[in-house]
Amino acid sequence: MAVRTIEIRERLMARNDVLAGAIRRRLADAGVTAFNLVSSPGSGKTLLLERTLRALGEELGVAVVTGDVQTVNDAERLERHTSRLVQAVVTGGACHLDASQITEALAAIDLGATRLLFIENVGNLVCPASWDLGETAKIVVFSVTEGEDKPLKYPKMFREAKYAVLNKIDLLPHLDFDVELALANARAMNPGLTCFLTSARSGAGLDLWFRFLREQVQPVLVP
Amino acid sequence: MAVRTIEIRERLMARNDVLAGAIRRRLADAGVTAFNLVSSPGSGKTLLLERTLRALGEELGVAVVTGDVQTVNDAERLERHTSRLVQAVVTGGACHLDASQITEALAAIDLGATRLLFIENVGNLVCPASWDLGETAKIVVFSVTEGEDKPLKYPKMFREAKYAVLNKIDLLPHLDFDVELALANARAMNPGLTCFLTSARSGAGLDLWFRFLREQVQPVLVP
Repeated sequence: MAVRTIEIRERLMARNDVLAGAIRRRLADAGVTAFNLVSSPGSGKTLLLERTLRALGEELGVAVVTGDVQTVNDAERLERHTSRLVQAVVTGGACHLDASQITEALAAIDLGATRLLFIENVGNLVCPASWDLGETAKIVVFSVTEGEDKPLKYPKMFREAKYAVLNKIDLLPHLDFDVELALANARAMNPGLTCFLTSARSGAGLDLWFRFLREQVQPVLVP
Repeated sequence: MAVRTIEIRERLMARNDVLAGAIRRRLADAGVTAFNLVSSPGSGKTLLLERTLRALGEELGVAVVTGDVQTVNDAERLERHTSRLVQAVVTGGACHLDASQITEALAAIDLGATRLLFIENVGNLVCPASWDLGETAKIVVFSVTEGEDKPLKYPKMFREAKYAVLNKIDLLPHLDFDVELALANARAMNPGLTCFLTSARSGAGLDLWFRFLREQVQPVLVP
């Protein structure tokens, strides 16, 4: 029974990886940088995306695929800030996005007019770590209200990510949160992790975040 | 392929439900009330448990089974506050506790000396909603830093829970969080939900929480 389940799971993952590989090639051919945003529920990644869309949506040709278990709340929030395409995926109870859902969502997106794609995953620090969506890199968003040990408790996610955003730093004066300890824990899990400190609410740290995004986007080649 | 996966999943769930039923009968026979604490990462459920153990550990004969993906950090934190048994389960990457893990953990717990059992689930608002652990009831813990729409975005969890704890209310003066809206959203998903407002850090609201727990525990029958 256990062996059978693992077998099925491995076949599902293998199929996902094939689809993710195809997405990665398609995005590379179109010159699109794609970030898979992963986080716990309530880390503020939707607000971070709202601010990012407002500031850089037109400049960097941003498109968004946003996944949610049941609602399209996030997509509605994001659409208020951009004329760029926001594509909603409702997983219908599933705890992560998979590559087949991204393949479908991409069919509605004009990649020729897109340079930066955000995939906003389901709020969950466990399952999305295992599912490749063909992204350029995973960015894990966590917040100063969550405790410094989150990187130790969800190590796979912090290892799979190339970048981390520690959000809600405007709340630091009201918390007993040790930023240095949190960053040390994150780097203990993944020495190569680049960390940003932000407050999507106050705007603190967003200048560096925006500069990073501008650097990640491929230059437009004028033919 | 898809059909096969669903079949396997249904058999796994059915097996889990059989084990959960056996746990439920065992706990009922022993006169133990069991709460399955579910939450997103960083909602403060471990601190709530620490405070609860310190205040009621001896009085109510509390035992804890705490689940985590990789670490035993939570168990170590909890053990500092009680001489009562804390049993750690490391799921090894899995996103939820299941009934077979609880069955194993219970083997190390003296149920005759236990009246209240907390099962601290993996921090995840999606997957643990589907796994019955033989508990008396699920209690969903969320926090005022997470956004008022969490009940709408994770409806299954709020429907499966009988009680909700909205934690970190000491931070309300520093946030744009609408408590009434959050509670209305929670009740829209589950009209029968009883909600507690707490701050495990400041202690606000813990008196009502402790009173509730005292009421949930079965009286000791002197033979």
